[in-house]
Amino acid sequence: EKDSYQGNEFAGVVTGLAWTEVGGEILYVETSLSKGKGGLTLTGNLGDVMKESAVIAMEYIKAHAEALQLPSDIFERWNVHVHVPEGAIPKDGPSAGITMATSISSGFTQRKVRKDVAMTGEITLRGKVLPVGGIKEKILAAKRAGIKEIILSADNRKHIEDIKDIYLSGLSFHYVKTLQEVLDYALLPEKIDNPLNII
Amino acid sequence: EKDSYQGNEFAGVVTGLAWTEVGGEILYVETSLSKGKGGLTLTGNLGDVMKESAVIAMEYIKAHAEALQLPSDIFERWNVHVHVPEGAIPKDGPSAGITMATSISSGFTQRKVRKDVAMTGEITLRGKVLPVGGIKEKILAAKRAGIKEIILSADNRKHIEDIKDIYLSGLSFHYVKTLQEVLDYALLPEKIDNPLNII
Amino acid sequence: EKDSYQGNEFAGVVTGLAWTEVGGEILYVETSLSKGKGGLTLTGNLGDVMKESAVIAMEYIKAHAEALQLPSDIFERWNVHVHVPEGAIPKDGPSAGITMATSISSGFTQRKVRKDVAMTGEITLRGKVLPVGGIKEKILAAKRAGIKEIILSADNRKHIEDIKDIYLSGLSFHYVKTLQEVLDYALLPEKIDNPLNII
Amino acid sequence: EKDSYQGNEFAGVVTGLAWTEVGGEILYVETSLSKGKGGLTLTGNLGDVMKESAVIAMEYIKAHAEALQLPSDIFERWNVHVHVPEGAIPKDGPSAGITMATSISSGFTQRKVRKDVAMTGEITLRGKVLPVGGIKEKILAAKRAGIKEIILSADNRKHIEDIKDIYLSGLSFHYVKTLQEVLDYALLPEKIDNPLNII
Amino acid sequence: EKDSYQGNEFAGVVTGLAWTEVGGEILYVETSLSKGKGGLTLTGNLGDVMKESAVIAMEYIKAHAEALQLPSDIFERWNVHVHVPEGAIPKDGPSAGITMATSISSGFTQRKVRKDVAMTGEITLRGKVLPVGGIKEKILAAKRAGIKEIILSADNRKHIEDIKDIYLSGLSFHYVKTLQEVLDYALLPEKIDNPLNII
Amino acid sequence: EKDSYQGNEFAGVVTGLAWTEVGGEILYVETSLSKGKGGLTLTGNLGDVMKESAVIAMEYIKAHAEALQLPSDIFERWNVHVHVPEGAIPKDGPSAGITMATSISSGFTQRKVRKDVAMTGEITLRGKVLPVGGIKEKILAAKRAGIKEIILSADNRKHIEDIKDIYLSGLSFHYVKTLQEVLDYALLPEKIDNPLNII
Ligand SMILES: [Ca+2]
Ligand SMILES: [Ca+2]
Ligand SMILES: [Ca+2]
Ligand SMILES: [Ca+2]
Ligand SMILES: [Ca+2]
Ligand SMILES: [Ca+2]
Ligand SMILES: [Ca+2]
Ligand SMILES: [Ca+2]
Ligand SMILES: [Ca+2]
Ligand SMILES: [Ca+2]
Ligand SMILES: [Ca+2]
Ligand SMILES: [Ca+2]
Repeated sequence: EKDSYQGNEFAGVVTGLAWTEVGGEILYVETSLSKGKGGLTLTGNLGDVMKESAVIAMEYIKAHAEALQLPSDIFERWNVHVHVPEGAIPKDGPSAGITMATSISSGFTQRKVRKDVAMTGEITLRGKVLPVGGIKEKILAAKRAGIKEIILSADNRKHIEDIKDIYLSGLSFHYVKTLQEVLDYALLPEKIDNPLNII
Repeated sequence: EKDSYQGNEFAGVVTGLAWTEVGGEILYVETSLSKGKGGLTLTGNLGDVMKESAVIAMEYIKAHAEALQLPSDIFERWNVHVHVPEGAIPKDGPSAGITMATSISSGFTQRKVRKDVAMTGEITLRGKVLPVGGIKEKILAAKRAGIKEIILSADNRKHIEDIKDIYLSGLSFHYVKTLQEVLDYALLPEKIDNPLNII
Repeated sequence: EKDSYQGNEFAGVVTGLAWTEVGGEILYVETSLSKGKGGLTLTGNLGDVMKESAVIAMEYIKAHAEALQLPSDIFERWNVHVHVPEGAIPKDGPSAGITMATSISSGFTQRKVRKDVAMTGEITLRGKVLPVGGIKEKILAAKRAGIKEIILSADNRKHIEDIKDIYLSGLSFHYVKTLQEVLDYALLPEKIDNPLNII
Repeated sequence: EKDSYQGNEFAGVVTGLAWTEVGGEILYVETSLSKGKGGLTLTGNLGDVMKESAVIAMEYIKAHAEALQLPSDIFERWNVHVHVPEGAIPKDGPSAGITMATSISSGFTQRKVRKDVAMTGEITLRGKVLPVGGIKEKILAAKRAGIKEIILSADNRKHIEDIKDIYLSGLSFHYVKTLQEVLDYALLPEKIDNPLNII
Repeated sequence: EKDSYQGNEFAGVVTGLAWTEVGGEILYVETSLSKGKGGLTLTGNLGDVMKESAVIAMEYIKAHAEALQLPSDIFERWNVHVHVPEGAIPKDGPSAGITMATSISSGFTQRKVRKDVAMTGEITLRGKVLPVGGIKEKILAAKRAGIKEIILSADNRKHIEDIKDIYLSGLSFHYVKTLQEVLDYALLPEKIDNPLNII
Repeated sequence: EKDSYQGNEFAGVVTGLAWTEVGGEILYVETSLSKGKGGLTLTGNLGDVMKESAVIAMEYIKAHAEALQLPSDIFERWNVHVHVPEGAIPKDGPSAGITMATSISSGFTQRKVRKDVAMTGEITLRGKVLPVGGIKEKILAAKRAGIKEIILSADNRKHIEDIKDIYLSGLSFHYVKTLQEVLDYALLPEKIDNPLNII
């Protein structure tokens, strides 16, 4: 059976959309911080390109720490672990980029992630959000899982417009050009309950 | 021949359930600590996904040290070695996640593991327990080995309910949603005899 | 569909030309700096030869720091991350050499990159620019993307002269023998708006 | 031709039993210590599982240093090298576990190894000795090599009892459940002649 | 088309001779130094044996620093990067050994390389120069490229003598037995214009 | 054509015997020392087992420094590089063990190697010399190369005795059981001319 949306009570947990052999699926990206010296650990049976997405996300956040109101030495004091359940399923591709960046940002800021939202999009190092494939399958999976809003690249707008309206009912779309727009929208100003004292 | 349950006199030794080509089997996860600087060694002919389970377990425990009443600097003072006998058998998959987390937690706390219990379940970084496959075969193996109680994901309840009652006699089931529930239940308050002085 | 030129508002972002199975394409090389100890990270699904291009570019810039008016200790104080979107496409070959060198140089100097320019050419460690293949396909891609000027090796002049004039209208060519000529031409004297304080 | 037993004049040299394509064979595990910082080197054309045996043995000895009357800082002051001749023959499997643990223990304590003894058995991290395969072939090899006593897992007793008595004449068997029993029996109280000054 | 000789204005750039599927070719070995701690970087799509040649060359130069009038601590203060253009062509084999050693030596001493000279020969760690294959093809390539003199192993003299005189007109040969002879001959006493201040 | 013996003027250069597809051959093992922190570099297109021989040799020498009158801290002050020409030929197997140990010992002591001698034999960590294969082919190669005396394992005596006397004329054999016997015999008491100042 398929997964359903799981709420937004945790910092660092963000809902993404994947496109697999058996159709679209939602996935979760989880970030956990532990005291350390800036190590980055990636788990979840991830392929090289998906691992690179996490490296790019981390680099972007380091270079834009100020925009997230993070002190620049914070990255030398914590280890970052990014995990994508479920371990039995190999995962790859760049489309989890914005999900990973949002997950790591939420982990560091302990800010709550917007409710009922999923996202899909490749990031570049300068913070551009590129379009991704499998849009129709991803939309169906999101709807089935109870997602109400989807963040994706403005360059994917045409792919949404190609889908029959009946499949889109109950879903709204938030188109973005930059990662900064993703973070501004997906990260709520308030922190989660019982936030970690990261900064 | 098949293995049988071996008691709970050691800290860090926890009974898991595996599903192999020749059917279900019990397995043991062993954790040993030695003075060091936070190294993690994994042995037992483990595949990449199973190794990731140990990394996730370790990270969860670091991030939740307080809940286990562990000082946060403890992880820099000990090396952790997790082993799964038997070396001739290749092992993989995420289903040993909760077993590994319980084993490492018992190793650090030196708390006794609940008697006659086996467990199976994938963990995520935020501490969710995911359902796993091969439930029927694992149940049969557990019974044959003398196990009396099994800890598993609430999402596996339906798989247990699909099994004929005759196979379940003498077994009870403890369903969990989070790793914290596993640890609360499987780790007894008392320490083993002659505990190591870890903290 | 094909990409189009994206302007020059970012430091460290330089337009290159690639030759793939489906014809010519433009690509972007992005450099981002973060405080560190001189690490070099390369992402974008790059093959070994393309990674070597970045290593050679970095080495050249270190050895010629003075010509870029960079203090020689700068390379020990920053980590350099070079990324080539898009992650789903494997990329290889030496022809991005001058693009990478220009990207890294712009990242360190925060100087603006000349507008409407793309480039292709292999670099050697001493700073020679070698000719590359696929010139015709690259030219067509550049034109389609809105590029107006192309920097390439003087040894590629004959390949341009073999192309019918009709395909070249609206394009000018800047032939170079050395990387220094590339940097002198492609990096404008002024910095981007809101430059990082690197030096 | 086949090897024969070579005496017990060296610390760190212990006789094991292997089962290869051409039947049973004796093998030697050699441990040498040199001043260092705790490195572990493994040679002898060993497969991954056999290397893991050495890692497990080393970890067990570190965790049970007191039982061997070794100061706990000793492991940071010496490098351990474990070698299994002959280099032309690939070797693998877990059955050399107790031989490796005895070899390393003898190396650190400089205690003499019991004469005319060979051994075979997998170890676990908690010090359990597991049964191994190929028992009949190993027994024949041991006898041919002049071995008089064999140490093996109590769970291999049934395999010995299945062998005709005529093949067992002149051999005695020492069954064990734990590695501690192996060490207590196989390591004599006296040191070799001209022991190294390790402690 | 084929490459032609490029002069001797750079320190660290030395002309070698390679033998490829498409016949003989000249190649350049380039050495660049940057401040560091003794790292050695090798690029140019080099196979393992060719990389070993650079390691051997570096070791020889370290062990014979005095003969080059280099202070012995110099190797801890600089990183060495050896590159062989062109990146698209895989290169392997030991025959670039003397070329690499001459290139690195010129890089450290900033001494000019003898004009119009190419070389080919394997080096050993003690500084012997071994003969190499493909001599005829290499000679033809050298002549075509405008080379006037070739340095090679005395043990290759017979291969030169087997070539018809007509192919050798305009070329002279400098036979050597040791790397020291190569360096004494190929490195001119004077430094290049605007030498780096290495020592 | 085949190689011939090259004298004994260098410390660290020792003649070995190899058995290849094209028959027996002599080979040279070269050791060079450079100031460092105990690194070990191995070159010459060596397979894993042959690399292990060098590691075992190095370990033996460290553990028996006193017998060679070497101060025990010497190994932390020098890097050791062992090379086996010729790079184009892949080499593997354990039979160069005693040659490598003699080469490294000569490198550290700067003692001259006995003239006109070649050797072949596997070493173990405790210093035993094991017999090797291909004896007849190796003997023929040694004779052809001008070797007068061959050091080999006492367990290879029977293989020599199986060879017709006519092939053995002019050769003498020095049989050994231990590496110490090899070193005592093959390393002359005097140093080479112009020895390095190692100790
Ligand atoms: Ca799923
Ligand atoms: Ca994807
Ligand atoms: Ca079993
Ligand atoms: Ca499993
Ligand atoms: Ca594209
Ligand atoms: Ca290319
Ligand atoms: Ca044998
Ligand atoms: Ca075995
Ligand atoms: Ca060429
Ligand atoms: Ca070559
Ligand atoms: Ca030869
Ligand atoms: Ca060999």
